[in-house]
Amino acid sequence: MSIKKAIFPGSFDPFTLGHSNIVFRSLALFDEVVIGIGNNSSKVRYFELNYMIAKIQEVFKNHPQVSVMAFEGLTADFAQSQNAKFLIRGLRNTTDFEYENTIAQANKYLWKELETVFLITDPLLASISSTLIRDIHKYKKDVNNFLPYQL
Amino acid sequence: MSIKKAIFPGSFDPFTLGHSNIVFRSLALFDEVVIGIGNNSSKVRYFELNYMIAKIQEVFKNHPQVSVMAFEGLTADFAQSQNAKFLIRGLRNTTDFEYENTIAQANKYLWKELETVFLITDPLLASISSTLIRDIHKYKKDVNNFLPYQL
Amino acid sequence: MSIKKAIFPGSFDPFTLGHSNIVFRSLALFDEVVIGIGNNSSKVRYFELNYMIAKIQEVFKNHPQVSVMAFEGLTADFAQSQNAKFLIRGLRNTTDFEYENTIAQANKYLWKELETVFLITDPLLASISSTLIRDIHKYKKDVNNFLPYQL
Amino acid sequence: MSIKKAIFPGSFDPFTLGHSNIVFRSLALFDEVVIGIGNNSSKVRYFELNYMIAKIQEVFKNHPQVSVMAFEGLTADFAQSQNAKFLIRGLRNTTDFEYENTIAQANKYLWKELETVFLITDPLLASISSTLIRDIHKYKKDVNNFLPYQL
Amino acid sequence: MSIKKAIFPGSFDPFTLGHSNIVFRSLALFDEVVIGIGNNSSKVRYFELNYMIAKIQEVFKNHPQVSVMAFEGLTADFAQSQNAKFLIRGLRNTTDFEYENTIAQANKYLWKELETVFLITDPLLASISSTLIRDIHKYKKDVNNFLPYQL
Amino acid sequence: MSIKKAIFPGSFDPFTLGHSNIVFRSLALFDEVVIGIGNNSSKVRYFELNYMIAKIQEVFKNHPQVSVMAFEGLTADFAQSQNAKFLIRGLRNTTDFEYENTIAQANKYLWKELETVFLITDPLLASISSTLIRDIHKYKKDVNNFLPYQL
Repeated sequence: MSIKKAIFPGSFDPFTLGHSNIVFRSLALFDEVVIGIGNNSSKVRYFELNYMIAKIQEVFKNHPQVSVMAFEGLTADFAQSQNAKFLIRGLRNTTDFEYENTIAQANKYLWKELETVFLITDPLLASISSTLIRDIHKYKKDVNNFLPYQL
Repeated sequence: MSIKKAIFPGSFDPFTLGHSNIVFRSLALFDEVVIGIGNNSSKVRYFELNYMIAKIQEVFKNHPQVSVMAFEGLTADFAQSQNAKFLIRGLRNTTDFEYENTIAQANKYLWKELETVFLITDPLLASISSTLIRDIHKYKKDVNNFLPYQL
Repeated sequence: MSIKKAIFPGSFDPFTLGHSNIVFRSLALFDEVVIGIGNNSSKVRYFELNYMIAKIQEVFKNHPQVSVMAFEGLTADFAQSQNAKFLIRGLRNTTDFEYENTIAQANKYLWKELETVFLITDPLLASISSTLIRDIHKYKKDVNNFLPYQL
Repeated sequence: MSIKKAIFPGSFDPFTLGHSNIVFRSLALFDEVVIGIGNNSSKVRYFELNYMIAKIQEVFKNHPQVSVMAFEGLTADFAQSQNAKFLIRGLRNTTDFEYENTIAQANKYLWKELETVFLITDPLLASISSTLIRDIHKYKKDVNNFLPYQL
Repeated sequence: MSIKKAIFPGSFDPFTLGHSNIVFRSLALFDEVVIGIGNNSSKVRYFELNYMIAKIQEVFKNHPQVSVMAFEGLTADFAQSQNAKFLIRGLRNTTDFEYENTIAQANKYLWKELETVFLITDPLLASISSTLIRDIHKYKKDVNNFLPYQL
Repeated sequence: MSIKKAIFPGSFDPFTLGHSNIVFRSLALFDEVVIGIGNNSSKVRYFELNYMIAKIQEVFKNHPQVSVMAFEGLTADFAQSQNAKFLIRGLRNTTDFEYENTIAQANKYLWKELETVFLITDPLLASISSTLIRDIHKYKKDVNNFLPYQL
C-alpha cells in the first residue's frame, strides 16, 4: 500500500467549521492531507493569510498528518508539485456540484492522474459559507460559532 | 495504516461502462472494493442476478481486490456486515446529487461510521444508464458498446 | 383581521418529524391548520390511514388549532371545501422546488384564491422522507427517531 | 437548401397547449414536422391513441407540413425511418433539462446524424403537464383550458 | 391573535412588477409589510435610493399596511429592530432556491425567532430581474412594462 | 422557403472548441449564422477583439455561410438589425439552463419574433469554459487543446 496524499484546496477566507469537518472526515481516507490556500495576489483577502494559516495549524495541532500551505497558480500544478494524486472537495448543494464538476474535469485534463474525491457537507454545516461569515463579521457580530477556532 | 474497504452498491441491471469506470478509479483509494448487488425479491430483474455476477467477475478477474456479492436488506447493514466503512457512489448530474445526498445522510444515521465517497462520472459515460440500456436491448439493438463485457 | 386557515396536504405514509416541524412553525402564521391526508383509493398505504390519523392527533393534542382529516380528490377542491385559502408546503431541495412550483401553479388555476406558502425544511430533518422510513421499517429497524410519536 | 424534417416525439396522453405551442414555433425552423406518438403496448393509455391522433390532426388541419403518426420502438429508429434528422423537445425546467440531456446523447449514439433541438416552453404554459391534466380529468373537472382542442 | 409583521428585504434597484406582485400577495398573510431596501454604502446604486423609495410609496399609497424603509447592516438585525418575525422572499427558480435556503438558515441563526416565508413568483413575471431591467435601461429602451410605476 | 438566419451571441473571450462545435452543428439548421461578439466598452477583454475575430474567421474560412461581427448594445437589437430571427445557444448544465431561460424570455419581450434555439453541448466539451481557459493561460500553460485554432 502506497501513501495516499490529498490536497484540500480553497481560499479559506476564513476556514470554517464546514471545512474542518471535511478535513477530519477525510483522515479516514487519506494518510496525508495538505490544506492548500490558493493565494491570488490580485485579490485582497479579508482575513490575513498568515493569520489564517496559524489558526488552521492550531485546529490540527494534534494531527501531524494535516499540514497547511499557501500556493499560487493552478490547483492541479500545486497538487503535482506536492505529489498528491487526490483533491478533496465538500459538496453542499447542486450549485456546488455543477461548479465542482467543471473544475474536476479541468483538473484531470491538467494532470491525468489527479482524482477529485467528494464528501457531502454535514447538513448542519451546509449553510455556513466564508462569504456569509465575512458579511456578519463586517457588522461586528460574533462569528466564532461558525469556526473551529476563536478569532 | 488499516485496510480501507468500500462497498459499491447498486442494482446493476446491467452493470455498465460507467460503473466499471468508477470501480477502477476507486482502486486508487481503497484496498478492497465489494460490488454489492442489492437484490429486492419483490422486483423482477431484466438481466438475471447470477448471469450479471458472472459478467462482473469476468471484468475484474485480474483485480483480486474487487469482489461481487448480492445482498438483501439495507445497504448500511450490508456495509456493516462486511466491515466496510465506505460507500462509493458515482455522480452524473444534479438529480443524482440530490438523491445521493438524502441517501448518504440516511446511511450515516443507520451506521454512524459509514462515510459515502463520491466520484464524478466520466462525462463521456454520463449518459449511459442501466434503464437506457434495457430500453435499447428490449428492441434487439446491440448494447455491447455501453458494457465492459459482451452479453 | 379575518381568520387565516391553511391546509397542509400530503400522503403522510408516515407523518415524520420533518412534517411536524413544518406544522409547528406554520402556527406562527396561521390561525388554523388542517393536516389533509390525500387518500387515493387505488394506492395501497403502508401505514393504515386511521392509525396514522390517531398518531397525528396525539402529536397535536395540545394544539386545538391543528386538526387532521382524510380527503379524496384534488387538493384545491379540498382546500375550497374547507374554506382554507392557503396551502403550506415544506421545501427540502431543488427537486422538491420544481415539483412544488408546477403543483402550485395548477392549484392556483383550479382555485384562483388559493396561495401556496413555502417554508424550508430544517436542514437536520431534510434527509427524512416517508419513503426512506418505510424502507427502513420494512427491515424491522427502529424508525421512532424520525417520528414525532412512537409507532 | 435541402428539406428540413423534424420529429416531435412524446406520449401525448393528452397533447396539451404546451405541446401545440412548441410545434407552431418549430414551423419557423423546419419544413416538415412529424408528431410521433410513442406507443408502448405494455402501458395503458388514459386517452385512446386514435382519439388523440384525430384531435391533433384537427389542431393542425390548416398546416399541411405537420403530420401525426404513432410508432413503436426507439425514437431514434423512428426518426431514421422517417428520414428526419432533427428531434424537437420543449424544456420547462431543470428537471426536464437533465432528463433530456441524457436522452439526447443516447439518441445521437443510436443514430449519429440525429440532432436534438430544444425550445423553451412558454412560461405561461410551463406548469401544464399531461400527468396533471389526467389527474384533474379523473375528478370530472374541465381541462379544456389546457388543450388546443375540445375533448 | 397578535399582529403579524413581515419584512420584504432586497436592493430593489429597481423595484419590479415581480416584487410588487409578491408584496400584494403577502398582504393576505401579514398585517404589516415593511419593504426594506438594504443600503450598502460601498455599492453604487443605478437608481437613486430616495427616488426608488418615492416610487414604491406611490405603488402602495392605498395600502397603509405597507411601508418602505432603507436599512444598513444585516437583514436579521433590521427585522429584529422592527420587531418583525417574518421575512418574505419570492422564488423564481432553483438557483434562487439554493441561494435563499442558505440565507434563510443564516438569518435563523442570527435571530432564532425569524421565519422566512416563500411565495413562488408568478411565471409571467419570473424572467423579470432588476439586473435585466438595468441592462435594458442602459441602452435607452423603455422598461416601464416591467415596473409597477412609471420611471 | 425563406432564408433562415441565426445569431450565435457571446463574449468569446476566447472562442472555444465548445463554441465551434455548436456553430458547425447549427449549420444543419440555418442557412446563415452570424457569430456576434458582444462588446461591452466598460469591460476589459483578455484576448483582444480584433485578434479573436481573425481567429474565428480562420476557423470558418471554408464556410461562407458563417460570419463574425462585433456589436454593442442588446443582443435582441443586434439580431433585429441583422434581420436574424433566431438566436443559437449551447446548454452545458442546469445552471446554464436557468440563466438562458431568463435571457430567452427577455429577448422575446424585446423582439417578439425572436426565437432562441438550444443545442446541448457535446459532453466531451462541456467542461471547457472561456473563464477556465483564461485562468490556465494566465499561468502560461498551453490551452490550444481547448481551441479550434492555434493561439
